[in-house]
Amino acid sequence: MIKVSVMYPNNPGARFDHAYYRDTHMPLVKARMGDACLKYTVDKGLGGGAPGSAPTYVGMCHIFCDSVESFQASFGPHAQEIMADIPNYTDLTPVIQISEVVVA
Amino acid sequence: MIKVSVMYPNNPGARFDHAYYRDTHMPLVKARMGDACLKYTVDKGLGGGAPGSAPTYVGMCHIFCDSVESFQASFGPHAQEIMADIPNYTDLTPVIQISEVVVA
Repeated sequence: MIKVSVMYPNNPGARFDHAYYRDTHMPLVKARMGDACLKYTVDKGLGGGAPGSAPTYVGMCHIFCDSVESFQASFGPHAQEIMADIPNYTDLTPVIQISEVVVA
Repeated sequence: MIKVSVMYPNNPGARFDHAYYRDTHMPLVKARMGDACLKYTVDKGLGGGAPGSAPTYVGMCHIFCDSVESFQASFGPHAQEIMADIPNYTDLTPVIQISEVVVA
């Protein structure tokens, strides 16, 4: 299993609508990807490792798929529509990483 | 529920022993934290968002707890022992983030 992590840097002054991300954007991603998205998780940054420090990422999602190929096959055809929704909740550019799930 | 993400930057030339991390270090963390660690996951970086690009993080773990307080109460007393094990698998300094789990 692989996960695609989409991580939005916690830049000062940036806009990020957590409610829209949770209630509208991520359900859109799941609806378009269908069963190829085995599950997804959403995080809201609270802090860093040191007490009182800021989180590195204001928000993150992790999309779980059987393989990189199944992610690409299910996300690719809808990428344009999904990307077009991003300005509705943020002006940030996310860091994207694909990982192998070693311990699920 | 909160998650503590420990993310090791994919620095060129750095050392990271994925097998030790999976088989020895993370079980040590779980053993010391006990039930306060509801679960943990481990990731191995495969790539970035662009085809052929490198992952931002070579490895990550995410430790799930009921609250920041339960993490601190269970990890804190063993932090010294757990930190002392880090050189056994890496010479990297991780990025640490605490997040609220919005969608589990």
